[in-house]
Formats: sequence, structure tokens, C-alpha cells
Amino acid sequence: MSNQAALRSDYVYFEEITTRWMDNDVYGHVNNVVYYSYFDTITNNFLIKKGGLDIQDSEVIGYIVKSECNYVAGISYPDKIFGAFRVNRIGNSSVEYGLAIFKEEQVNACAYGSMTHVFVNRHTEQPTKISGQLLEALQSVLIES
Amino acid sequence: MSNQAALRSDYVYFEEITTRWMDNDVYGHVNNVVYYSYFDTITNNFLIKKGGLDIQDSEVIGYIVKSECNYVAGISYPDKIFGAFRVNRIGNSSVEYGLAIFKEEQVNACAYGSMTHVFVNRHTEQPTKISGQLLEALQSVLIES
Amino acid sequence: MSNQAALRSDYVYFEEITTRWMDNDVYGHVNNVVYYSYFDTITNNFLIKKGGLDIQDSEVIGYIVKSECNYVAGISYPDKIFGAFRVNRIGNSSVEYGLAIFKEEQVNACAYGSMTHVFVNRHTEQPTKISGQLLEALQSVLIES
Amino acid sequence: MSNQAALRSDYVYFEEITTRWMDNDVYGHVNNVVYYSYFDTITNNFLIKKGGLDIQDSEVIGYIVKSECNYVAGISYPDKIFGAFRVNRIGNSSVEYGLAIFKEEQVNACAYGSMTHVFVNRHTEQPTKISGQLLEALQSVLIES
Repeated sequence: MSNQAALRSDYVYFEEITTRWMDNDVYGHVNNVVYYSYFDTITNNFLIKKGGLDIQDSEVIGYIVKSECNYVAGISYPDKIFGAFRVNRIGNSSVEYGLAIFKEEQVNACAYGSMTHVFVNRHTEQPTKISGQLLEALQSVLIES
Repeated sequence: MSNQAALRSDYVYFEEITTRWMDNDVYGHVNNVVYYSYFDTITNNFLIKKGGLDIQDSEVIGYIVKSECNYVAGISYPDKIFGAFRVNRIGNSSVEYGLAIFKEEQVNACAYGSMTHVFVNRHTEQPTKISGQLLEALQSVLIES
Repeated sequence: MSNQAALRSDYVYFEEITTRWMDNDVYGHVNNVVYYSYFDTITNNFLIKKGGLDIQDSEVIGYIVKSECNYVAGISYPDKIFGAFRVNRIGNSSVEYGLAIFKEEQVNACAYGSMTHVFVNRHTEQPTKISGQLLEALQSVLIES
Repeated sequence: MSNQAALRSDYVYFEEITTRWMDNDVYGHVNNVVYYSYFDTITNNFLIKKGGLDIQDSEVIGYIVKSECNYVAGISYPDKIFGAFRVNRIGNSSVEYGLAIFKEEQVNACAYGSMTHVFVNRHTEQPTKISGQLLEALQSVLIES
């Protein structure tokens, strides 16, 4: 089972994400789909800034193999929101991230979930062992088990 | 645990979805986020056509409280794809849908997962018991357990 | 000035596009942004099917340098819509496309506009002369002037 | 002809917009469609903050009747970008906005264009005269002609 977390104190890495007019759906809330866009933005932000990922040129890139999200409370454009990120588990070539969205300074997440990357060679698409700067970055936000 | 299914024969309701140029991401495949857009399109298609949902006016509407997806094989615009839909479980006011994406006539899903709706009163946002035409429609695609 | 056209009879190439739940915005209509997604989908469909474009590997690819759209009548998911495509003008390395969106069998467009591609070498990003299969395809849907 | 502007000094109202992973298309740049999402986000930000727009409840709302964009230089996630906004022309019930996207502190826009809103009564969809707080806000960023 996923090791999911819904409190602000469960996370250490945060980034503000600006909501967009078109994020809202016909019921007036951010559409459920869009949360995953927030999730993969903050994940890639972390991988680029801390893990050395170059999305245009890196030999090793991450493919998503699983994602999930629990929706607790609605948010709506133009709410001010923050994406939260951590690493739940590091495998040989895969990583499960923990992710959450917080409205302003609230302590309870509006939504939380997880995404799993398998790191592969960009050309062969074969899984590769996580190592070097990427491994160090991931370990720096790994939860204690 | 979710009752998920990855074979074409696990599903009875299908609709073609036309992929879009911007569905592809920088790695050349349909972005992981977009699959959820396919999922909620086919779900709402079913609810509108079979369950009597009027997204502008119905008193009772569905809010997503949970979603998840497993990504098995990449698809890319302009692939021809089909969304598949079924009902995994019907509760008092909530329903878990089973969903999958198939490329052309393939029998194995490229992606499969689930989404859970809680039906609420549009104005009060309080959960409401599933009944009438909606219940009948959902039961018609409910898997046997 | 662009040579824009709002009638079904102004076009020869059509493709159905399936609308999506999240295309609708909070006012209940397809968001203005999404029409451009329809436009570049039908344009690339034409270039792939008729012009020999391989979006992963072609040496020559098209960059959008200008686009515009006039919105005449709202459409909403789950409307059945068709994208219409033609070529307004062929230059040395650039092409202006004419585009429109029609609801079902209606003769008046719900929206119409244009997009201009400059064809460039994928690696150098320098403009290249339009020729060969691509030129023939574009000429086959060029309006008479 | 539109009164379009491509220099930072042509604008007075700016907001940062956070780019998203999925904004990039298969060619590695922000997809042409997404710029319009930036445009209508900054426009609505201005209308909400300065013009008193309540997107859920206002009697008077804006419908887009025309939009256009010129693409000068590519941007890519995770670039830091700013949306710029001004009013080009105020009519009886319609307004043409001038819009541009700037990368970091650059003085030349990566893209610039315009959008035209017609303000209508939310229920009747009939055009309404622009007045009150909305008119004052629009006049405050109207260019001199």
C-alpha cells in the first residue's frame, strides 16, 4: 500500500504553483485531472533543480508507471496553492514520490497522492539503476521508515 | 484494494477518443496526466447517455474523491484509442468505476485504473443516495463479484 | 489580412474531434484556449496523413509563428464537432492554414481562424523551402485566389 | 488592425505564471495553445483583483470573441515567465486587451497578442454596457491613443 501523507508537516519540499483560469471545470473547481499536472510539475522541478535532470538531453529519464490521488477539499482558480513533494521509497530503478497540494498556509492537504517513476535509458527505454546526483537528491527527501 | 482490470474482455462499454497533438509530452508519448482526462470523459459520456446526467442542470452531480492509473505501454498522438468503462462497486452515494485505454484493437490495456465518484446535491454539496435512472445505468455495467 | 472563412463549403478536409469533459470551463462552454488545440490537432493530422510528417523523426518540422481565432457561437462537451482545414497561402518556407470548427452538420462555423507554420530544420531551426510530398499535399487543399 | 505591443515598456501590469511540465510539446517548447491559457489567466487575474469580477456569481461576465498571438521566441518549462497585460481599446460592451509573455527580465516579448471580451449578462447572454468598478479598472491600464 502506498505510504501517503496529508499533513503539511509530512513534507519538506514545497513550491508555489500558479492556478490558471482553465483549471476550473464546469462545477467551478479545479478539475481532478489538473492535480496530476501539479504533481508532475513539482516532481520535475525537484529532479531538475536537485537531481541534475535535463529534460532535453539527459541519458536517464523517468517514466511514470503508476499514479494516484485522493481529493479531500476543492480548490479553485485563482486560489494560491503550494505543491509538496517527498520520496516515499527508493528501489533499484524506481522511486515512489509522495505529493500533496495545500491551499495557502493550510496544514491539511486539499489533495494528496503518489506517483512512481521508473528511470530508463532514453534511447533503449531499459530500466537503469538510480545512482549519483539523482540518488543523493532523492535520498535527501526520503521519509524515514 | 481496487478491483482493476487490464483486458479488453473485462469491459463492456467503449468509446473512441481522438488524441490531440498537445497530448504528447517532450518524451514523445501521451503525458500521464492526460489519461485521467480520457477517464473522466468516458465516465461522463456514460453518465450523460445512460444515467441521465445533465452537467448544466442536474440536481445531483458527481465529485471525484479518488483516482488512480497504472501505465503499461505508451501511446502517442495520433494513435487511434478507445476508452473502456465499467462499474467496480456501487455504494450508498459513491461508485467506483473501472477504466482502461486500449490502442486500436489490442486486447491488453495501455493503461488501466479506477475513479471514485461521490454523488452530491449540487447546491448543498451533501452526499445523496444513488437511485432511479442513474442507479439502473450503473448496475447495467456493474461487474459480478 | 487573413483570408478567413466561416462556411462549411469553404473547406474540403474535415475530421471529427471528440470533445472532453475538461474542455468546458466554469461558464459551461469549451474554453477559448481549447479551440487552438483542435486547430493544431487537425493541422498535424493532415500533415501526417497527407504531407509525410513524422513528428518524431522528420528533418523538417513546422513551428507556429501566428494564430488567431474568431468565436461565433459556443460549443460544449459533449457536443459532436468537426474540425475543418484548408491552406490559405503557401510561401517559400511558410504556410497559412484556414481552420474552423463546426457543430454536427451545421453550415456556419462556431469558430474560425488561421495558423501560420514556418517549416524549419529540426536541428538548426533554420527555415527550409517547402517541397516534395509536403508541397503537393498543401497545394491539394490550397484555395484559389 | 490590432494595436499590438512586443516590448516590456509597453505594459504596466505583470504577473508571474509558473510553467508546467506538460506545457512542453514533443518539440521541446511550450505548445502554441498554452500561451492562450497564460493570456486568459492574467486577464482574469486582473479582472478579479481590480475589476471586481466574481467568476462564480457576477451578473456580468466576459465572453471571448476574438484572440490572436504572434510567437517570436520559444520558451520551455521550467522557464520563469511573466504575463503582461494592458487594455488597447474600450467599446460600449467590448474590450480589447493587449497581452504578452516575457521570459525572466527580458525586454522583448517571446509572444504577444490580443484578446477581445464582450461583457454579457450571465443569464440572458446579452451584451451589457461596461460601467462602474470594471470600467474604472479597465481605464486604469488603457493605452493612450
